[in-house]
Amino acid sequence: MDIGIVNKRYAAEVDAELERAISGCGAPEPLISAMRYSIKAGGKRLRPCLALGVCEMLGGNAEMALHLGCGIEMIHTYSLIHDDLPCMDDDDMRRGRPSNHRVFGEGQAVLAGDGLLTFAFEYMLGMGLVHESKSYFKAVHEIARRAGVSGMVAGQSKDLECENSETPDESALSFIHSHKTADMLTAAVLAGAYSADAGERQLLALERFSQKMGLLFQITDDILDYSGDEALVGKTLGKDENSRKLTFVTLYGIDKARELAERTAEEAKSILYAAFGPGAEYLVQTVEKMLSRKY
Amino acid sequence: MDIGIVNKRYAAEVDAELERAISGCGAPEPLISAMRYSIKAGGKRLRPCLALGVCEMLGGNAEMALHLGCGIEMIHTYSLIHDDLPCMDDDDMRRGRPSNHRVFGEGQAVLAGDGLLTFAFEYMLGMGLVHESKSYFKAVHEIARRAGVSGMVAGQSKDLECENSETPDESALSFIHSHKTADMLTAAVLAGAYSADAGERQLLALERFSQKMGLLFQITDDILDYSGDEALVGKTLGKDENSRKLTFVTLYGIDKARELAERTAEEAKSILYAAFGPGAEYLVQTVEKMLSRKY
Repeated sequence: MDIGIVNKRYAAEVDAELERAISGCGAPEPLISAMRYSIKAGGKRLRPCLALGVCEMLGGNAEMALHLGCGIEMIHTYSLIHDDLPCMDDDDMRRGRPSNHRVFGEGQAVLAGDGLLTFAFEYMLGMGLVHESKSYFKAVHEIARRAGVSGMVAGQSKDLECENSETPDESALSFIHSHKTADMLTAAVLAGAYSADAGERQLLALERFSQKMGLLFQITDDILDYSGDEALVGKTLGKDENSRKLTFVTLYGIDKARELAERTAEEAKSILYAAFGPGAEYLVQTVEKMLSRKY
Repeated sequence: MDIGIVNKRYAAEVDAELERAISGCGAPEPLISAMRYSIKAGGKRLRPCLALGVCEMLGGNAEMALHLGCGIEMIHTYSLIHDDLPCMDDDDMRRGRPSNHRVFGEGQAVLAGDGLLTFAFEYMLGMGLVHESKSYFKAVHEIARRAGVSGMVAGQSKDLECENSETPDESALSFIHSHKTADMLTAAVLAGAYSADAGERQLLALERFSQKMGLLFQITDDILDYSGDEALVGKTLGKDENSRKLTFVTLYGIDKARELAERTAEEAKSILYAAFGPGAEYLVQTVEKMLSRKY
């Protein structure tokens, strides 16, 4: 298996479906242009690809995984738009282009985010009424939970609070990463599993795996920030490099951070092999790609 | 029937359920305090009351209507928080208290709004997994659609655009009111109907009624703004009184606006009587209360 080829196929499906969905969403101008600007901003579609990869591994319903994955991508995109706002991280650039509020103004950017978040549920629920599967609705609920006030929004809130504090501590760092980053990756992996009507044991293994992957994602991101290799990391997390933020590198030093990344990747792979054997190759290669900082 | 007594009973149920839901939502501080501050800001619970009233009229499942109504109230509350932001209507006060961002800061206010919106779906979907009713999920989908980019968010976006323009026209005014106000009232009425597994004809009559009620709500609000009777209207729509906004009063004059309100109320009542006969008393009294500006 060449994960590059598989991901290209997945991303093409996701791009086409996102464009189809947004085109028919009924938003007026300038709202629809603001939504489309950020949806088409060159994201790698990591989350929908994870949903599709897990679904394929488990022999599930690929359409369901596609619909859930696209909903997750809309939610991820709204979070980046709101994260870049002046009252949040105040970022003028995102993935090498002006951020949403720099192009459409702050008010419309808030609404583009609100719109993408609401439309994610309108879209996923609309598809759910066609699928008529309880497992699918469980997935939509899981996505809402992971995106919400005990998940991603909780991470953002804590992050914002710590930026204003002089002494962020290690437990806050762990809370922020676990919720701001890992929760939506977990939602994507579990969405793929629900699309295959996975059992409790598989769901648990995939959740444990996702938490490791989320941690790995964050450590390699911190390492890249430290190395100043902006081109590769692409600022996907909306961090403010100028703040004296606590990161894995500032906390442990660069060598220990690299070691931690490698150990975390091994742990993630072990969980996969133990639960799914050689069938887990797509996820294993995702972990390796992440470790070598291609995400 | 005394609508005051009925509404008191409904509002008590809604308040208790909202408090139960928010208490268990798992949000950290200060996020949960910011959410609770606006949820408990003294709203009249008009939308959940409508859901409960329609459900009772049709002999439906009151639990379902309560859960959908509370979800709608969370969405309504998020929209007020975001509407008050400096980059939107820039309102320092809401219902006689400092607006959310004046108390918690802009960043946390954005997140409190994002959190309430996401939690509305987490909560409604979680309840849906218990109810196991297709009609209930149809209602959640309808709520997302009416709250979203072809509904309330579309109205907000157009409103924002018109505030920056010197010449807002009549069709823009109609678009804004229909989406910013009427759509969520319609969602509430239809949620009550879905809780009773209402048929196509009932849904259509209730949708036509809701559009009239939304228009009535807006006209009486404009009249109150004109009369300067701020205490009664309670600023529920987040309008900026200092802008030279096109309203029903500035468009038609105060006398014609009053006439239009009365005619609209009559039309709303006719639709109700034709479809539901004397059973529609709760909704009829709601219209009369609205006309005499008690909402």
